[in-house]
This record gives sequence, structure tokens and C-alpha cells, in this order.
Amino acid sequence: MHKEITIIGPGLIGASLGLALKRKKICKKIIGIDTSKQNLRYAYSIKAIDEKREKIDKRIKKSSIIFICTPVSLIDKIIYELSDYTEKNQIISDVGSVKNIFEKKTLKLNDKKFSLVPGHPIAGTEHSGAKNAFNNLFQNKWCILTPISDNKKSIRIVSEIWRRIGMKVATMKVNEHDKIMSITSHLPHLIAFTIVGTAFNLNIKKKNELINFAAGGFKDFTRIGSSDPKMWTDIFLKNKEFLKDTLSLFLKDIEKIKKLIEDEKYSQIFRLLQRTKEIRNSIIKKRI
Amino acid sequence: MHKEITIIGPGLIGASLGLALKRKKICKKIIGIDTSKQNLRYAYSIKAIDEKREKIDKRIKKSSIIFICTPVSLIDKIIYELSDYTEKNQIISDVGSVKNIFEKKTLKLNDKKFSLVPGHPIAGTEHSGAKNAFNNLFQNKWCILTPISDNKKSIRIVSEIWRRIGMKVATMKVNEHDKIMSITSHLPHLIAFTIVGTAFNLNIKKKNELINFAAGGFKDFTRIGSSDPKMWTDIFLKNKEFLKDTLSLFLKDIEKIKKLIEDEKYSQIFRLLQRTKEIRNSIIKKRI
Repeated sequence: MHKEITIIGPGLIGASLGLALKRKKICKKIIGIDTSKQNLRYAYSIKAIDEKREKIDKRIKKSSIIFICTPVSLIDKIIYELSDYTEKNQIISDVGSVKNIFEKKTLKLNDKKFSLVPGHPIAGTEHSGAKNAFNNLFQNKWCILTPISDNKKSIRIVSEIWRRIGMKVATMKVNEHDKIMSITSHLPHLIAFTIVGTAFNLNIKKKNELINFAAGGFKDFTRIGSSDPKMWTDIFLKNKEFLKDTLSLFLKDIEKIKKLIEDEKYSQIFRLLQRTKEIRNSIIKKRI
Repeated sequence: MHKEITIIGPGLIGASLGLALKRKKICKKIIGIDTSKQNLRYAYSIKAIDEKREKIDKRIKKSSIIFICTPVSLIDKIIYELSDYTEKNQIISDVGSVKNIFEKKTLKLNDKKFSLVPGHPIAGTEHSGAKNAFNNLFQNKWCILTPISDNKKSIRIVSEIWRRIGMKVATMKVNEHDKIMSITSHLPHLIAFTIVGTAFNLNIKKKNELINFAAGGFKDFTRIGSSDPKMWTDIFLKNKEFLKDTLSLFLKDIEKIKKLIEDEKYSQIFRLLQRTKEIRNSIIKKRI
């Protein structure tokens, strides 16, 4: 059992982590640090954290692990700030959806001023903030670690924590993670955000009723497209390179099917759709 | 209570309709017509239909209403075939996802050889066939009617049926329906089918594990993208014009955000995403 863990940014992910750490008795005391007093108060009221702090200072020395659960654009800066106080044996981890986010000057301090184990628990909802947190958010989901040095002990400790709160843990290279996420998460979100805008620019009389007439497809898209704009602007920009490449491939594929539809190539369209269904079924089978 | 209703194509929608008609005691006897013996047997075994037929013939005269629940590309042809046997007072309706599907020669027979009330119950899952039918598939969903003539009695009878099995019924013009569906259903499906293909053409080592690492976004997309390929090829081609226009607008919008990401225009991207969230919230509020 850890004596003290700090969670910087106890929002949906951070506060859910706090709740899970306590439920599984992984940690005695949890410190929450946030610039939003309101969010801190909420995280404290639901007992996701035991102490509220509004800034990083030397008190951080007491925490064996520090989880950074802020939007991805802030993570590197916060680690650099933490390094003024932390020591070699203190573990810093994060939950960012993009992993190629660390500056050289930060990486240089690794294994000297702290032990960094970047992570990404693939969990979340379209809601954000401690007010939407719940302790089994992570249950049966995957957590990907992208270690940047060979500090086995730190990697083991972080893995163990996510496992104990119900996650399956995989390890991969930073670029592999960011590429996979560009197609499985970032592009779908970009599309979802975009299509809602497209819909409401259409010249349709009953625009306000669009959602009523949206079975499946669009309803899922609007739900995804209601995710936190700040968080997603950050993700799109931080994973810019992979997202750009993946988006280009997608656009090429959709232009291809657009042409097939224009030319009414029935059997070619059918084969394309059938292939998708086969791919999908083959993955689902493999999982069982 | 109707004495006899025929359902042509008792698949997911048709067999669910049969189950609902019987549960609500709207009809005494339901005839199922299908070219697939297997599907007919299944529909019969779950009591969605009371009699199995493999072809359309003069026995159809006994049905006061005929619902055509086949893929959209077959509907017009079937109506024309029915007209050899039907009489002026017999109602023909359908459940197709595209409504601009009737040939002139078919429309000419309306109110002479049958009374046509085109409809679209917006309900369904990614599964198809009678084996996936369930009686409350339509509960609380919307059904859109796109009447092509002013036969008030027939429109009232068809409306009444959908209402009694739990649907909210709206009436709109054919083009309005097809335009709305192009954005709320057809484009999302086209995107979902495409992105699964894009993903599996990507050069990724752990391709088979893609689905594991897909929180939200991609998982929804693969589910949508596993819908029936024949049905969706039909829909894409039948709604070709509106789908093409809507897709072009979407592509313009996504090229715009792609450029913003490339140029790292943080605040412009943020405003775009925030607007989506606002639009979404405003619709959701209006519904309550």
C-alpha cells in the first residue's frame, strides 16, 4: 500500500482514478492538485482526493507516485515544474491520449530528478470533470504504457496499479501508440465533431428535429462530438503528424467510394462493404 | 382489427413489425412472403408470421395492407408486380430508408390499382434477418411518412398502425426525408464502413488488437460498419444525389479543419469544436 499519491487534474479520469485507488486500498492518502477550485471541491466531496491543493510545491516530495491527468498540452510543462521538487525515486505517470509529448529537456531529467512512466488508460466518456467520475471507469479496459527508459521497477509499479484497478496493461512504442490512436480514437472524434457542424449548415427546414430522425449513426456521432473541446483541440494538435497521415488515407478511401457511388458500380461497392463486415467479424472472433 | 396483413421480406424490420402487430392485436393473420426459405421458416417459428409464401400471387387480394420490408432496390419492382393482383382499396406501404424510389409507371397506378403510403420507421440495429427481430424495436422511435397522394384514409390507417406499435409519426416531403437521412444516417454509415477499411490498410504491427485499443469512437464505427452490405449498397445508390452533395459538404468541412490542424490554429479549432458541443447541447435541450 502506498502512503501518498498525488493526482494533478482530478477530472473525469483523475478523480475516477482516485476513487478506484481508494476502493482497492492501493493508497492511504490522495492529494489532488488543480487550478479549478470548483473541480477540486467536487473531487474532495466525493472522496476521490483527501487533500486539496491549488499549486505544486515542495510538499510533493511526500508522494511516491504523481499521476498527471490534465489536458495533454500541459503535461510536459507540469513535469518540468515538478522536477524542481521531486527526487530520482519518485514516479511520475500520466494519462494523456498522445504519448509523443515530452520535450528533450524533460526527458533528460528522467532517472535523475524523477522516474517517468508515460501511460494511457483507454477509458473515458464524453463527459468531463470530477462531477462525472466513477470508480469502475477503468474496469476491463486497456491501459497502454509507453516506457521511455528501462526502469523496470517503476514500470512494474505503475502496471500493478492499473491492473489492480481492473485494467489490462499493454506496453508499446510511443509512435506505435500514437499511430493506433490516430485511427481508433482521434480520427473518429475529428469526424464526429465535423459532421455535426456539416449537418447544421445544411439547408433543412426541420433542423431542430434532426436528432429525432437520427437512428444509430448520427446519434453516436453527436454524442462523441460533445466531448470536451479543449481536451480534443490539444489531442488533435499534439498528434498532428499521425492524424494528418491517417486523415489523408481516409480521405483517399472515401473519395474512392464516392466515385464508385457516382458511377453506380454496384458490385464494387458491395464488395467494399462486405470486406468491412468481414474484417469486423474476424476481429470480434479473435477476441473471443 | 385488420383481418389479414402481408409482410413482404420479414427480416429484422418486417418480422419485428409482425411481432408488434400481433402483440398489439392489430391484425388476426399475418402472411410472410420471402424468397429465402430459411428466413421464412425463422419468421414463422417465432410467430412473426402465420403463413409462409415464396411468391406473390392472387392470394394477396385478401390482405388489406401490404408492407414491403425488402432492401430498397426491390421495392418499386415489387409494387409493380403486386399491381397485377391488388385493387384500389388495398394499401401498400414500405419501410425503405430512401423515399425517392418510385418509377413513374408505378406512381401512375396509385389510387387506381392500390393506395400507396410510403413510410420509413427509423429503427433498426446493425443485425439483419428475422433471427434478430424483437417486438419492441419500434418503441418510442420516429416513423416518417412521405405520402405521394392525398388519400387521407390510407395515410390515417398506416399512421395509426405505427402509432399503436409505439412510434411517433411525422409526415414530410420525399426530398426533405432523403436529404435529412443523407446526413443523419447514410453519410455516418458510409464513413463507418470506410474508416474500418482505412484502419486495416494502415501499417500497424498489432493490427488484430486495434479493436482492443478502441475506446468509444472506433468501436461505435465498427459496429455501424458491420451492417448488412447489400442493404447499404442499395441505400447509397438510391440516395446517390443527396448523399453526394452531403458528402461534398462534409469533405469541404473536414479539409478546412485539416488545414487548421496543419497550421496549428489552436483557437480556431477550439471554437469549431466548442460550436459542435453547443449545437449538440441546444438540440438535446430542445427535446426535453
